[in-house]
Amino acid sequence: RIFNEVLFFPSEIVCVEHIFTPSSPYSCICSLPHGVETSFSRLLHHIMSASNSLDLCVFAFSNMDLCRAVLALHGKGVTIRVLTDKDYAAITGSQIGVLRRAGICVRCDVGSVYMHHKFAVMDGRLLITGSLNWTLTAVQSNTENIVVTEEPDLVQPFIKEFHRLWVHNDPA
Amino acid sequence: RIFNEVLFFPSEIVCVEHIFTPSSPYSCICSLPHGVETSFSRLLHHIMSASNSLDLCVFAFSNMDLCRAVLALHGKGVTIRVLTDKDYAAITGSQIGVLRRAGICVRCDVGSVYMHHKFAVMDGRLLITGSLNWTLTAVQSNTENIVVTEEPDLVQPFIKEFHRLWVHNDPA
Ligand SMILES: [Zn+2]
Ligand SMILES: [Zn+2]
Repeated sequence: RIFNEVLFFPSEIVCVEHIFTPSSPYSCICSLPHGVETSFSRLLHHIMSASNSLDLCVFAFSNMDLCRAVLALHGKGVTIRVLTDKDYAAITGSQIGVLRRAGICVRCDVGSVYMHHKFAVMDGRLLITGSLNWTLTAVQSNTENIVVTEEPDLVQPFIKEFHRLWVHNDPA
Repeated sequence: RIFNEVLFFPSEIVCVEHIFTPSSPYSCICSLPHGVETSFSRLLHHIMSASNSLDLCVFAFSNMDLCRAVLALHGKGVTIRVLTDKDYAAITGSQIGVLRRAGICVRCDVGSVYMHHKFAVMDGRLLITGSLNWTLTAVQSNTENIVVTEEPDLVQPFIKEFHRLWVHNDPA
């Protein structure tokens, strides 16, 4: 059976520390609820499942937990490519500069009014796509959705489109 | 085999008159290209395929061709429910007022910062979801995607979420 999941937001605000430090699941002493699975913890779980590659194509990226997830994958040797909107990349709070300084390949779309996608492909296998930008407001305050799927008829077109946009846009 | 399709934008600008008047496919004399299938014509085709119901949940709705499609379905007796963002509904160019004046049921999300969804369910069977708002800029100028699927594991959660949001939000 092909994996399909839909996650809706806003997500409850809970501790997600265990996703980053799975070896010590009970050690966190922060004031947020623990042991609760939410749409956001599921999203982080899916992103962190990448073992080989992460292709991310997202308009707005300012969420620090999502940035931490991408940096963690980078630290584990996962090949990461990030395609983003040139205007949003420059605003205060954008994490794109953090990713670049960590050595992650980032390209900015220069050919359209807005690079409005919000999708990611993990290991050429699992697609995350929907309305959700990678911001704190999107996760905690907006009504949003993401589809998570391994259906090849859906994953493959996104892989091709990512490749098309990647080669089309300047690495500068 | 379950129907799955991915459409990418921006879409070429071509004549879509034949989708609204299929009985006279060769009669249009406008200056746009004819007989060309695009992502936007596919989107219109899928929307116009509704024979019983259309549940639409979209942040921004200003595209006049998409408004014409919804009005055409309404005229054919298709039951239409539109859930939208309260702030965007009030801006210049929004077609929400046009839909309301035509007698279509519209509700505005009042509980979140942004009602940022962009999905539609036709006949409880076919789901359209993605990054694309129902605006001219999204269709013609932005880099965008929509997933079109009949996969029940994806369609059913959106049906439930639409119901939840519909009953939760005020008809005023
Ligand atoms: Zn904690
Ligand atoms: Zn024409």
